Amino acid sequence: MSKEGSLGIVQTKLFTFGDPPGEMPLEFGGKLGPITMAYETYGKLNSGKSNAVLILHALSADAHAAGYHEGEKSPGWWDAMIGPGKAFDTEKYFVICSNVVGGCKGSTGPYSLNPATGRPYALNFPGVTIADMVNAQRYLIAHLGIEKLLCVAGASMGGMQVLQWVAAYPEMVRSAIPIATALKHSPQQIAFNEVVRQSIMADPSWRDGDYYDYGQPERGLALARMIGHITFMSDKSMEDKFSRRRKNGFSGFNFAADFEVEGYLRYKGDAFVKRFDANSYLYITKALDYFDLSEGRLIPEGVKVDTRFLVISFKSDWLYPSYQSQDIVRQLKMRHVDATYCELRSTYGHDAFLVELEEMRDLVRHFLEKTYSGYEVLRVYDI
Amino acid sequence: MSKEGSLGIVQTKLFTFGDPPGEMPLEFGGKLGPITMAYETYGKLNSGKSNAVLILHALSADAHAAGYHEGEKSPGWWDAMIGPGKAFDTEKYFVICSNVVGGCKGSTGPYSLNPATGRPYALNFPGVTIADMVNAQRYLIAHLGIEKLLCVAGASMGGMQVLQWVAAYPEMVRSAIPIATALKHSPQQIAFNEVVRQSIMADPSWRDGDYYDYGQPERGLALARMIGHITFMSDKSMEDKFSRRRKNGFSGFNFAADFEVEGYLRYKGDAFVKRFDANSYLYITKALDYFDLSEGRLIPEGVKVDTRFLVISFKSDWLYPSYQSQDIVRQLKMRHVDATYCELRSTYGHDAFLVELEEMRDLVRHFLEKTYSGYEVLRVYDI
Repeated sequence: MSKEGSLGIVQTKLFTFGDPPGEMPLEFGGKLGPITMAYETYGKLNSGKSNAVLILHALSADAHAAGYHEGEKSPGWWDAMIGPGKAFDTEKYFVICSNVVGGCKGSTGPYSLNPATGRPYALNFPGVTIADMVNAQRYLIAHLGIEKLLCVAGASMGGMQVLQWVAAYPEMVRSAIPIATALKHSPQQIAFNEVVRQSIMADPSWRDGDYYDYGQPERGLALARMIGHITFMSDKSMEDKFSRRRKNGFSGFNFAADFEVEGYLRYKGDAFVKRFDANSYLYITKALDYFDLSEGRLIPEGVKVDTRFLVISFKSDWLYPSYQSQDIVRQLKMRHVDATYCELRSTYGHDAFLVELEEMRDLVRHFLEKTYSGYEVLRVYDI
Repeated sequence: MSKEGSLGIVQTKLFTFGDPPGEMPLEFGGKLGPITMAYETYGKLNSGKSNAVLILHALSADAHAAGYHEGEKSPGWWDAMIGPGKAFDTEKYFVICSNVVGGCKGSTGPYSLNPATGRPYALNFPGVTIADMVNAQRYLIAHLGIEKLLCVAGASMGGMQVLQWVAAYPEMVRSAIPIATALKHSPQQIAFNEVVRQSIMADPSWRDGDYYDYGQPERGLALARMIGHITFMSDKSMEDKFSRRRKNGFSGFNFAADFEVEGYLRYKGDAFVKRFDANSYLYITKALDYFDLSEGRLIPEGVKVDTRFLVISFKSDWLYPSYQSQDIVRQLKMRHVDATYCELRSTYGHDAFLVELEEMRDLVRHFLEKTYSGYEVLRVYDI
């Protein structure tokens, strides 16, 4: 194992495609274009173009998965997983991460200027699904000169994109790592997203989505994020982190945030307002709810898929419970797909994919190494 | 077992006490008075006054636990448990249920007129805790001529009141049935209550609590209830009830309530606005969060308690998980208190105490019968 290092300073790049008449058709109808994709790459594409790994992000993340942006103290959201000598080893692999279409971190989304009006799309932005996000990534991959990906990997919504990549373009995906994800949202998951959306839409400052001249619907968006945060943590991890501790001792019956957990949620909510667009939150949560690769849609009957899978879930994750990962594995096994499943014992709930990395790193590292060496043999003998 | 019957038409009564200078002192300081308690009674108090059962309600319920109000089609909230021949058999027992202080169903609460100003208390209502709710009930019990209760029973917040009754007045409680409850809220429970409160307080129509001249903060209160409802159900019961069914088929990507579960939550939220006061929701959720009988406070060391306990939890209840009921049982056993514990296998989540009644009815019926016959023997021989 090589020594781990840092990628150092990295930059987000932009790729624009689909100017009319080549607009991208959307799953639920309509077209979108031009589309800009914000993305980052780490490492080098080898001459055989056989070492490309696509990392797919969760709801509120972005293209900045690893390394540091100039002047910033925190690295990308999966820096512990991506870099020299790390699980996604940038000495070996060419790693790509792109911000999803519909997002607000450089890729085209509801906050972008609608070329037809010169004003932000707001609610005129078309409905964009997980399939559309993946289709847009395909343009980016082609632009980078890659025909087949060594691996697609991601957690939560990123895991859904992983599944969608295999469902739509199995021949382009040598291996897949869906983490803490699902073939479809349960009604409980839809319900949490619905109250998140209602939090935003109930805020008068949301102005039916047309708030860009006035600023974000701050209270609604902060509340939405507070609700989300509860679902990302486990009962146990909240107990470990906060228990019933007070922020400033007990100052009598009051409605301020006197418990630490209340203060933490408010802080997280307020911070979110500064970094995420409310309309993007609406569109993306809805894309999650509409996603459904159950009932044989992941791999339709008769389709031969030789993508290798590593499926990971976390025991304490109650937002994307393990049974949903087991449903993925069941579908794969029914279609005779090579799949390994691991449930990790983390107590961090859904957040585990960002914070409890040790076991996951080992699993991913070895899975990728094995996939890569096998893939090279297959290629040398042109099998 | 006698045949089950209905109580028929019942009425809510009012009892007022604590006019100055006899105002009731409050746990966190200050006094409240006069206090009106809305309550109902079913069955008859026997001559020995040994058959009184006090039923304690959950967050949003009221004194109307059983029977029918004139002209209404739905019975009280625990009608399946209370009535002739039922678990709380009104042929045998004198059953009392009172609306909590701080509530909005006839008892004094934030919506009540403040005698000092002639206007609703709103946020000038003092902080009222579970202990204060129980103290107010004690006045009511005395008013009804009862010195010792055969049983106190309740679920969720009602269960906390059960525990508080024993902690404060063990000599007045022959038996206790805390259901789906806890010695204290975990940070996760506090977190859910905090987002519920923020939903209300973020609504500009809340007007810092001073909305009584204008009407309820409708959207905020509805949203608060939607959040609550998710926590009352289990993942499984939502799947059984809604799965991913659409309300009106699929009409394209949109932010309306197209999944049935979304429509249900919105309906429940809107209905709640018509029946519950927003400020009461704030006060009562905070009372829940402050409640804490852990660390030996349920039964202090050296205090002898001969109250018999039946502790019940539901396997699928993730809002008040079984481990919290087990913590209650552990505290009781450490103090050598007679306690039976049952975890019921219902899939209905926290709602089970209202909807999955068969096993619970049998348990409660037999526990009460045994307690009552034993109690009568003790009394005859004056032991």
